[in-house]
Amino acid sequence: MNKVVVVGGDAAGMSAAAQASRGKEPTQLLVFEKTGYASVAAAGLPYFISGEVNDSDGLIARTPEQHRANGIDLRLNHEVISLDTDTRTVEVRDIDRGVTFTESFDQLVLAMGASPILPSWEGADAAGVFVVRSIPDAEAINQLIKEHAPRRAVVIGAGYIGVEMAEAFIERGLEVTVVERLDTPMASLDPDMGKRVAGALDQLGVELRLGVSVEGLEVAPDGQVSAVVVDGESVAADLVVLALGVRPNVELLAGSPVAVGATGAIATDARMSTNVEGLWAAGDCAESLHRVSGQPTWVTLGTHANKHGRVVGLNVSGTHARFPGVIGTAVTKMGSTEAGLTGLNSAAAVRAGFDVVARAIESETRADYYPGSAPIAVKIIAERSTGRMLGGQIVGGPGSAKRIDAIAVAVWNEMTVEEFSQLDLGYAPPLSPVWDPTLIAARITAAGR
Amino acid sequence: MNKVVVVGGDAAGMSAAAQASRGKEPTQLLVFEKTGYASVAAAGLPYFISGEVNDSDGLIARTPEQHRANGIDLRLNHEVISLDTDTRTVEVRDIDRGVTFTESFDQLVLAMGASPILPSWEGADAAGVFVVRSIPDAEAINQLIKEHAPRRAVVIGAGYIGVEMAEAFIERGLEVTVVERLDTPMASLDPDMGKRVAGALDQLGVELRLGVSVEGLEVAPDGQVSAVVVDGESVAADLVVLALGVRPNVELLAGSPVAVGATGAIATDARMSTNVEGLWAAGDCAESLHRVSGQPTWVTLGTHANKHGRVVGLNVSGTHARFPGVIGTAVTKMGSTEAGLTGLNSAAAVRAGFDVVARAIESETRADYYPGSAPIAVKIIAERSTGRMLGGQIVGGPGSAKRIDAIAVAVWNEMTVEEFSQLDLGYAPPLSPVWDPTLIAARITAAGR
Repeated sequence: MNKVVVVGGDAAGMSAAAQASRGKEPTQLLVFEKTGYASVAAAGLPYFISGEVNDSDGLIARTPEQHRANGIDLRLNHEVISLDTDTRTVEVRDIDRGVTFTESFDQLVLAMGASPILPSWEGADAAGVFVVRSIPDAEAINQLIKEHAPRRAVVIGAGYIGVEMAEAFIERGLEVTVVERLDTPMASLDPDMGKRVAGALDQLGVELRLGVSVEGLEVAPDGQVSAVVVDGESVAADLVVLALGVRPNVELLAGSPVAVGATGAIATDARMSTNVEGLWAAGDCAESLHRVSGQPTWVTLGTHANKHGRVVGLNVSGTHARFPGVIGTAVTKMGSTEAGLTGLNSAAAVRAGFDVVARAIESETRADYYPGSAPIAVKIIAERSTGRMLGGQIVGGPGSAKRIDAIAVAVWNEMTVEEFSQLDLGYAPPLSPVWDPTLIAARITAAGR
Repeated sequence: MNKVVVVGGDAAGMSAAAQASRGKEPTQLLVFEKTGYASVAAAGLPYFISGEVNDSDGLIARTPEQHRANGIDLRLNHEVISLDTDTRTVEVRDIDRGVTFTESFDQLVLAMGASPILPSWEGADAAGVFVVRSIPDAEAINQLIKEHAPRRAVVIGAGYIGVEMAEAFIERGLEVTVVERLDTPMASLDPDMGKRVAGALDQLGVELRLGVSVEGLEVAPDGQVSAVVVDGESVAADLVVLALGVRPNVELLAGSPVAVGATGAIATDARMSTNVEGLWAAGDCAESLHRVSGQPTWVTLGTHANKHGRVVGLNVSGTHARFPGVIGTAVTKMGSTEAGLTGLNSAAAVRAGFDVVARAIESETRADYYPGSAPIAVKIIAERSTGRMLGGQIVGGPGSAKRIDAIAVAVWNEMTVEEFSQLDLGYAPPLSPVWDPTLIAARITAAGR
């Protein structure tokens, strides 16, 4: 029987296994997960810390028992420590029992995920310093808040996780400082749109220190972190979150013929196959094609992990499936402000060789006379010579972020701003102005060509 | 100088005039509006009656003074009563002064709008019986509610206006019965999705009487409506709204060579020109191309009126502009339930000659563990042989309706359900489940082919 071993039991690995368990070919499915958890919705962790999600069980999409009932042999606390592509075996450490064994495979799914980038600063390993990647990470933060009633949190890094953690700590009643090396938060947004996110964080009561360098952490005699040193100044901290981004977990592939791409993640083809036949990659350790730049890209998002996993699960079990690529769509919220983006931002579009025109407009989420209408800013990035839509960005009040999806479908289909501006989108006063803000942005961008 | 006369000063006519006032060619702009109001956002009227919009001034997108400041000669209370395409003149009645005069034109914009269908039932013209088409209509309803404190409202017709008026009267504390000839409300939805709207109305406290016939209205000796006779039974009513739909205002064209299409509205080409050179049509009296059926269609929505007007305004002032057509996108809400649709519904797709596959799924608006997540149902209608997306429908909790826009962009681009199911749409737990509900619907529809 076709024996498939999956390395990593999170969204990508378990999606692959679940899909393969329903596949055309009978398939033996063996998943090794190094932690004690599988199928964790990591994107939900900030909301478990904020208190909006009460129970970490809610973050587990499917329990180990449910997976096993589907015929998947899921082994928790099992770490794959080496790979031999010649003998088609992996060496696995059973962490609980302290033993190591060898397992053969016909096909291997590489779904090792990604890990937080840890700085070399002194004090970065002190008590009270956390990353937010796993349920135990989140539980440790919750425990600290409950038991030590910290007053001041410092979040280092103003990407998605940093911004979401800042919101979470505000929800928990802490004073929050976010420290960021760049001049605007959420660097995937153009700076003018990032400034709007900065404004939203400011409104939430977050102190934002942009364009600064962290030089180290100060640690009290009891071993607890006490401050973050920012440009020579001590910022007091009872709790620090490191949100410096993640790197793909590809150590297993060192010395193997499995190719890693320029992004540092595993290179994949349109079927999510690696360069070694029968070895597949999925999720946060795998590259995807970026459909706008035409280049491999590396995006760590649960939505891609699930889709990768599904495609790989089909491919390992007798169905030919392709992953069509990504366009970099992402959404988040901070307080009542939402942000969304898709495609390439202005700088990335220039880097990809496009002649770029981009315009941002301000409008309202609803008819201006309808109560609850909130400001919304929409920016569209297009190719100047053709009008082709390359990307879009939105920052605005409730109901703003998911409007990026219409732009995403347009970018996917390589629509022009001219055609987009004439689209038939939904209109009703409680839900949209008569000219949808995305249509106005496309029209103004078209006029700027 | 190029002299353009516009018949009708609502969204379409005023958009045309406003656009032409900024046109390439110097243009003399004369607008005749038979009422005392111009640029009214008619879609907002139910919310002026519900009390959510306090002041009818908010519903006026641009005041007559603002239009005049743009060089538009806007004449309120002026009705165009006849048209002579040979002499290129219109006869205009100045209602205030009671005089009639003749005006010549180089180009004419026909933007007469639409009027409510009035039944021939006895009692339909009694006091307390209203349509909802104009600010005076809405003010009369508000006055009745304020001065006579009616207890029971009956809304006849469960289309958009009927449903929105039912919600408005609930907001005002009335007991509301909606009477509808068909078996589900909002007949533009497939019956299974329409049933969900019926459920939402029921939850709001609306009594819904479906599949029934109105036989007449009963009138009290004081001339006030007292009941609606439904299938032989009297349903007590202190206030009745007739929401039986609208018909295009094309009486002016009787005996003229301007062609009216099979829908009853003015036939148009891709530039929104009528069959008579220099005569253009825009808004609720004009047909549009339906991009999915390939047939002329007639949809009365402010969003199309604005877009038509813009295209006509460009065309009359020296720019070649095209209107690319519509796909029937519409959204509305009733209480906390939202509904959206785009493209063809199942029955319309069959009528248009497609071999149809359609599937509905139930999901959540947010990650299921995130607070405030609400049920959402998504249905996708596709061509069985090719997978081409023909339409979509959504009924669900807050944040549901505008998700139809992503489906609309896909229908516009003739995407297949297979490709749509792999799209890169926005994901974050407070805003969407990891598999966006629209993607799930596309996948299940694809599996049903």
